[in-house]
Amino acid sequence: MSPTTNTKAKAAKADDIAAYMREKGVKARAASRALARADTGAKNACLFALAEILLAESKSILEANAADMREGRARKLDDALLDRLELNPDRIAAMADGVRQVANLPDPVGELSDLKLRPSGIQVGRMRAPLGVVGIIYESRPNVTADAAALCLKSGNAAILRGGSEALQSNLAIARCIERALTDTGLPRDAVQILDITDRRTVTEMVAMPEFIDVIIPRGGKGLVAAVAEAARVPVIKHLDGICHVYIDADADLEKAVAVSVNAKTQRYGTCNTMETLLVDVAVAESVLPILGEIYAEAGVEIRGCERTRRILTDARPATEEDWRTEYLAPILAVRVVDDIDQAIDHIETYGSHHTDAIVTENYSKVRRFLREVDSSSVMVNASTRFADGYEYGLGAEIGISTDKFHARGPVGLEGLTSLKWVVLGDGSVR
Amino acid sequence: MSPTTNTKAKAAKADDIAAYMREKGVKARAASRALARADTGAKNACLFALAEILLAESKSILEANAADMREGRARKLDDALLDRLELNPDRIAAMADGVRQVANLPDPVGELSDLKLRPSGIQVGRMRAPLGVVGIIYESRPNVTADAAALCLKSGNAAILRGGSEALQSNLAIARCIERALTDTGLPRDAVQILDITDRRTVTEMVAMPEFIDVIIPRGGKGLVAAVAEAARVPVIKHLDGICHVYIDADADLEKAVAVSVNAKTQRYGTCNTMETLLVDVAVAESVLPILGEIYAEAGVEIRGCERTRRILTDARPATEEDWRTEYLAPILAVRVVDDIDQAIDHIETYGSHHTDAIVTENYSKVRRFLREVDSSSVMVNASTRFADGYEYGLGAEIGISTDKFHARGPVGLEGLTSLKWVVLGDGSVR
Repeated sequence: MSPTTNTKAKAAKADDIAAYMREKGVKARAASRALARADTGAKNACLFALAEILLAESKSILEANAADMREGRARKLDDALLDRLELNPDRIAAMADGVRQVANLPDPVGELSDLKLRPSGIQVGRMRAPLGVVGIIYESRPNVTADAAALCLKSGNAAILRGGSEALQSNLAIARCIERALTDTGLPRDAVQILDITDRRTVTEMVAMPEFIDVIIPRGGKGLVAAVAEAARVPVIKHLDGICHVYIDADADLEKAVAVSVNAKTQRYGTCNTMETLLVDVAVAESVLPILGEIYAEAGVEIRGCERTRRILTDARPATEEDWRTEYLAPILAVRVVDDIDQAIDHIETYGSHHTDAIVTENYSKVRRFLREVDSSSVMVNASTRFADGYEYGLGAEIGISTDKFHARGPVGLEGLTSLKWVVLGDGSVR
Repeated sequence: MSPTTNTKAKAAKADDIAAYMREKGVKARAASRALARADTGAKNACLFALAEILLAESKSILEANAADMREGRARKLDDALLDRLELNPDRIAAMADGVRQVANLPDPVGELSDLKLRPSGIQVGRMRAPLGVVGIIYESRPNVTADAAALCLKSGNAAILRGGSEALQSNLAIARCIERALTDTGLPRDAVQILDITDRRTVTEMVAMPEFIDVIIPRGGKGLVAAVAEAARVPVIKHLDGICHVYIDADADLEKAVAVSVNAKTQRYGTCNTMETLLVDVAVAESVLPILGEIYAEAGVEIRGCERTRRILTDARPATEEDWRTEYLAPILAVRVVDDIDQAIDHIETYGSHHTDAIVTENYSKVRRFLREVDSSSVMVNASTRFADGYEYGLGAEIGISTDKFHARGPVGLEGLTSLKWVVLGDGSVR
C-alpha cells in the first residue's frame, strides 16, 4: 500500500468515527426529550424490568465476560484489572440489586420548589429538570454499565456509555438487557446507547459534541480523567486527586482524635477519601502521636514526618515537600506538627486537593472557622474522611465524586444529573 | 527589520501577555482565599465605601470617560456603542445605587442547609461557598465594571475584569475607586483586578487558566460570547440566543392572551426575553389573530406568518424556515398556527433557544405538561416572557442570564457565583 492510500484510508476511518458518534448523538438527543417527559412509574418499571432481565440473562452475560477474561489474560492485563473485569453470579446479583435501589429512590425530576409571589403579581419558583444527555467514559468494570444506565434513566437523562475495550463483550451483553428493558416498558430504545466500537477516537469525538452531550463523566484512573478534561468542550464532572487531611486541634478530645485518625487512614488504603496527611497541633503532639504511632506501626502504616514529628516518632522517615502533595493510596501517611489552626488551614489550602478534610476539636469557634475557611468539597468535624461517599451522605447512589466547584461538589447522586429551571406563574401578567 | 527579528519580537510579546495574565491569576487566587473568609460586615462596608467614592470621584471618572468618547468618535465607533460607552452624572449615580443595592442583599456565603442525621450517627448538610475567582469579559459599558465587582465581592469571589479597549480610561478610573474602597476597608486590593491592557490575547490567556479562574462570564454580543465559549478551558456561564415563544392554547383566556402577547413583543424590542415567535392554536386563531394583528400593526410590528396565519392576517409576509430560527431583536414577529399543544412544544424544542417560553391557557393539565416538557431556562404560564430577569425574579441583581443547563440556568444572581460544599458533623464518628 502506498503512503498516500494509507493516509486516505485513515482519514476515511476518522470520518467514519465522527459520523458514528454523530449518529449516536442525534439519537440520544431525540431520546432525551421523550425521557424527560417519562413519568416516575414508567422509569421505575423499566429499572425493575432491567433487574429481572440481568438475572435471567446471567448465563449469557457470564459467557460474554468469560470471553473478555480469556482475551484479557491473552493480552496479559494485570491482575487488578482482571479482577475488576471479572463477573460472577454474585456480582450480577449485586448489579441487579443496585438497579432496584435506584428505582426505589425518589424521582428528582419535576420537583417544584420555592414558589414565591413577587410584587408584580407573578409567582416565581424552580423546577428540577434533567441535564439532557450524559456521556460516561469508563474503564474495565462492566457493572458501571448497568449502574450508570440506571442513574441516567432515573434522572430523565439519555446516556451514551463508552466502556473500555477489555470489557466490550460484557458491556454489550449488559447493553442487550438494557435495550430489552427499555423496549419492553415503552421507553425509547436509544435512551441508553453503549458504543460497540472502542476506538480511542470515539472519546475524542464524544467530548467535543456540546450540541449532543450536556455533560461528560469520566470514571477511571487519573490519566483517563485528566485526558478527558483537557480535551473536553462539554462540561465535565470529574474527580482528580484525593489528598485528604485530618487536623487534630489543640482542643481535640484525644479519644476522638485517635478514633478518627486511625479510621481515616486504615479502614481502606486505596480509596480517594482515605487520609493521606495528618496534621497535629503542637500542643497535643506529644500526647497523641505516640499512641497513633503505635497503632499505625501495628497496622503496617509507614510514617513520613516533619522534623517535629520525628522528634516524637523517632522511627519515622523524613517527609519531603513531595510527600505533602502525594495521594499514596497505600499504607503510608505523611505527618506534620503545626503551630495552630492557621497553619493547619494554610497547609490544607496549599497542598490539598479540595476533596475532604476534617478537624478534630471541641472548640466551637475553631469548628466554625474550619468549616468556613477550608475550601474542600467535604469539610468534616470529628468524623472520619472515609464518610465522604454518596451512600454515607444519603444520596442512595453515586455517579461519581466531583473535585470541581462548578455545578456539583463532592459525591454526585441523581440531583447532580439535573439542574433547576425557572417557573413563572401569572394571571395574564405583563411588565 | 528582518522577518526573524519580527517573529522573535512577537513571540516575546505573547510571552509577556502570558506572564502578565499569570501574575493577575496568582494574585486573584491569593485574594480569593482572604475574601472567602471575609465576613458580611466587611464586604458590605467595602461596597458602601465604593458607592461613596464613585460619587466623590465623579469628576475624574467623567474626565476619563470624555477621553474614551473623544477617541471613540475619532475611531468612528457607531452611535449605539458610543451611547453604551457614555457616562454622565445620572449614570454614575445609578452605578453607586447599584453597588449599594448589592450591599443590601443577603450574603449567600456560609449559608448552612439541610443538616440531616444519618444512621451512622454523622450529620450531613451543605454550606454555600464562593466559586473562587470569576473572570468577566465585557464590552463597552463601563458600568459593568462597578456592577460586576460588587457582585463578585459580595459573593466572596475575587474578580478579574477585562473590559473593551474603547472603555479603557473609564474602566481604569472606576478601578481606582474600587481599589481605594478595598484598601480603605481592609480587604485585599487584588480582590478585584481590572486589566490595564486590552490586547486580544489577554482573553485567550484568561479563558485557558483553570488553575487561576473558576468561571468565566462573557457579557456582550453573540460574537464575543461564542468566541469565548469556543476557546474556553474554564467553565463559562454564557448567554447565546433568546428565541422566545408565546403559545396561545385552545383553552386560553383571550384577554390574557392578548395582554401577554402584546407585552412580550412590544414592551421592548431589543431584549433577549422579547417574544420572537407567536404560536397560536388553530382553535382560537380566527378569534385572536385579527385582534393581535391590529395592535401589532399599530405598533409597527411586521408579521411573518405561516400559511394558515396568512389566511387570517392577509397582509403578513410569508415566514420562511429561517424565520423560526431568528432572534429579530426588532419589531418583527414570526407567527405560526399550530394544531395543538404537541405541535407547539415540538416547535419550541425544534426552533427555540431554551431561553424563555410561555403558554397562555386556563387548562390545568396543559399547564403541567408545558412546565414539565418545555426545556427552557424559564417556562411561564399566563405571563409575559419579558419577566425573565434577575430583578423581576427577586434576585436583587443579575450578573448575567445563562442559556446553559449546567450549574446555573436563566437569570444568574449572587447564588450563581457560589456552589454547595458538604459539611459533616460527627462525634468521633468512624466507618
